[in-house]
Amino acid sequence: MRPIVFLTDYGLGGEFVGVCHGVIARIAAGAQVIDLTHAVPRQDVLLGAVTLARAVRFMPEDAVYLAVVDPGVGSERRPVVVEASSGALLVGPDNGLLSMAWEALGGAARAVEVASDDILLHPVSRTFHGRDVFAPAAANLAAGLALEALGPTIDPASLRQVDLPGPMVTPGAIGARVVGIDGFGNVQLNVLPEDLDAAGLRGPLSLGHWTIARAATFADVPRGTLAAIVDSQGFLALAVNHGSAARMLGLEPGVTVRLSRASSAREIGEEA
Amino acid sequence: MRPIVFLTDYGLGGEFVGVCHGVIARIAAGAQVIDLTHAVPRQDVLLGAVTLARAVRFMPEDAVYLAVVDPGVGSERRPVVVEASSGALLVGPDNGLLSMAWEALGGAARAVEVASDDILLHPVSRTFHGRDVFAPAAANLAAGLALEALGPTIDPASLRQVDLPGPMVTPGAIGARVVGIDGFGNVQLNVLPEDLDAAGLRGPLSLGHWTIARAATFADVPRGTLAAIVDSQGFLALAVNHGSAARMLGLEPGVTVRLSRASSAREIGEEA
Amino acid sequence: MRPIVFLTDYGLGGEFVGVCHGVIARIAAGAQVIDLTHAVPRQDVLLGAVTLARAVRFMPEDAVYLAVVDPGVGSERRPVVVEASSGALLVGPDNGLLSMAWEALGGAARAVEVASDDILLHPVSRTFHGRDVFAPAAANLAAGLALEALGPTIDPASLRQVDLPGPMVTPGAIGARVVGIDGFGNVQLNVLPEDLDAAGLRGPLSLGHWTIARAATFADVPRGTLAAIVDSQGFLALAVNHGSAARMLGLEPGVTVRLSRASSAREIGEEA
Repeated sequence: MRPIVFLTDYGLGGEFVGVCHGVIARIAAGAQVIDLTHAVPRQDVLLGAVTLARAVRFMPEDAVYLAVVDPGVGSERRPVVVEASSGALLVGPDNGLLSMAWEALGGAARAVEVASDDILLHPVSRTFHGRDVFAPAAANLAAGLALEALGPTIDPASLRQVDLPGPMVTPGAIGARVVGIDGFGNVQLNVLPEDLDAAGLRGPLSLGHWTIARAATFADVPRGTLAAIVDSQGFLALAVNHGSAARMLGLEPGVTVRLSRASSAREIGEEA
Repeated sequence: MRPIVFLTDYGLGGEFVGVCHGVIARIAAGAQVIDLTHAVPRQDVLLGAVTLARAVRFMPEDAVYLAVVDPGVGSERRPVVVEASSGALLVGPDNGLLSMAWEALGGAARAVEVASDDILLHPVSRTFHGRDVFAPAAANLAAGLALEALGPTIDPASLRQVDLPGPMVTPGAIGARVVGIDGFGNVQLNVLPEDLDAAGLRGPLSLGHWTIARAATFADVPRGTLAAIVDSQGFLALAVNHGSAARMLGLEPGVTVRLSRASSAREIGEEA
Repeated sequence: MRPIVFLTDYGLGGEFVGVCHGVIARIAAGAQVIDLTHAVPRQDVLLGAVTLARAVRFMPEDAVYLAVVDPGVGSERRPVVVEASSGALLVGPDNGLLSMAWEALGGAARAVEVASDDILLHPVSRTFHGRDVFAPAAANLAAGLALEALGPTIDPASLRQVDLPGPMVTPGAIGARVVGIDGFGNVQLNVLPEDLDAAGLRGPLSLGHWTIARAATFADVPRGTLAAIVDSQGFLALAVNHGSAARMLGLEPGVTVRLSRASSAREIGEEA
């Protein structure tokens, strides 16, 4: 029985996640389900794709990924399974959600559309394909059913993909995007350390009225102080020791910010 | 080892759920526990009963249900186990919480009161029967203990029941109750499509100042627009594409609303 | 395969907990992970220590505890494993988080620093030792690896400890500390029933403008009424039947309150 890695935007404020667990247990009794997260911001396919892709190197190699962030549920978008070159399987809507993960797993080797009446839970609702389409598909795969049994083969080149745009790098400044905000209020940016080098930004940074110290970890700056660190995924993140950078800076996922060289006259970590 | 399906109003903001998992693992090592939901609104026995009953057809057939929404903890209400005609077992307080689920499972065939000193965790607290009474009972049942070993047999006819009142249907209007609000802000009503037919409501609906389009799925209406859909449980639900109907309409579980025929002069999905 | 009991302050608003589950599953496929709680207030080592210690008697005896509340991540604090006299293993930062739990498990018998390159996930991040250090250590122990294989032995006497200060008891009054607030808004104090006896407080209590009834359970007082009860851990707690004592009293974890004898002229459970 292969383990299932489960990611959605359902939240834990209702029974959606639990009902999918039940559906899986009926089909693949005893299969392990790893709840990667159910807190993807509602219908944010890009952030779901980023989160899934960043996690794959920490998940079991034989995992069946079950991912549902699906603003198009009930419309014509296809439910699909993608087999990555690594052998991992990815189940979800064909809206790009799975695409960054299969890239991280060596590319899409094969794909099928989930269509077999033996797999779907009938009657199939218009609004809850996690329960009626995707969970049954993942559970059957975890239990060993062959990929071809789920539906017709489709061309991997026909699958939709999403891309995380890189930052806009200019001499002395970077236009960055807030990729996500974690539970501590740390603000994850689409910026790598080499982007900072390319922009010539080596010391403290300016963001609006704020000056931000560079640090190896948020424990290296005084409590309540802003710092720019390299996070556990290798990206630049803004953090506050014992505080929330997102709240301090008023940032949300998806917004863009401008980082530039801090004027040396300013106090580090203080508002100008 | 039978799987345990676990529903409470404990929330995940503390260790109550985790402690019950520990108690189960001590008694029935390796038993699978499916967390259906722990987000039932505090002490809302009726909504807990509805949620449990709607879920049973998606859960393993040999499940032991462990359900705790228990405003009367520490008072004289009995802790009980009910065996449904399907063979499923239901453990919880005798306050009606289990009643809609056993009806959905073919009726209550047998019942016992949880009373055996060999089952209870001593000292039994006055306030945390989930840990000291219900979780040990469910774990012992999952591990194969006979129903009669838990305590004296009681007459299923003596068990408390709850009923979800139907809507008030009149020509041209329906008085409906908000049964629940899911994590997307969709508002679930106690209204079936046939109730709308009975009231003669076939087109757009009025609710207060709002006009609500009818749609097969919320993806069928423009972003930000209200729609009345049939949800994944077969009930009428109010939804907003990429938004929260509950927040837009200011609705909470338990309140009543009046749906009537929309004046055709109004713009669909717009406030009057 | 030993069960893992997992406690953090990561919250469920991101993928941190799920990523650690993945890391564990890669190393110890099929190991059971009990999520005790991930809602310890951010970086509150003392409350994490209290929560862990109070839970141990409800967890499997052969558990491997994996606890991460780690404001010093990336600094010089050591990652450690402690073997308790009971045989239980505790994995976490050497900041006192584990100390009340090993005391509850009979004391610290042996300890090692987690340092082996075969255990750590490379590259080890500066900010996510739950994933790169602690989860791999716990998973290897659950899978049967010997304690000594994780790193050099350290003297248990060198481990950091935390203590929960007792209340300040004087004739007619108690200075108490809010240890925690549960999901129902019940306020847990560091006060035992014998402390009330020592202060000569036998009837209703005063707290600021409020008078608080004594009750065996919150179901014994009218809805909306404050009561002081003995909670499921044996400590004094302030509760409101069908309400939140924390919100009513404006209390947060860590603050201190003064309990004294209520003037008999006041209405029980009402604001003065």
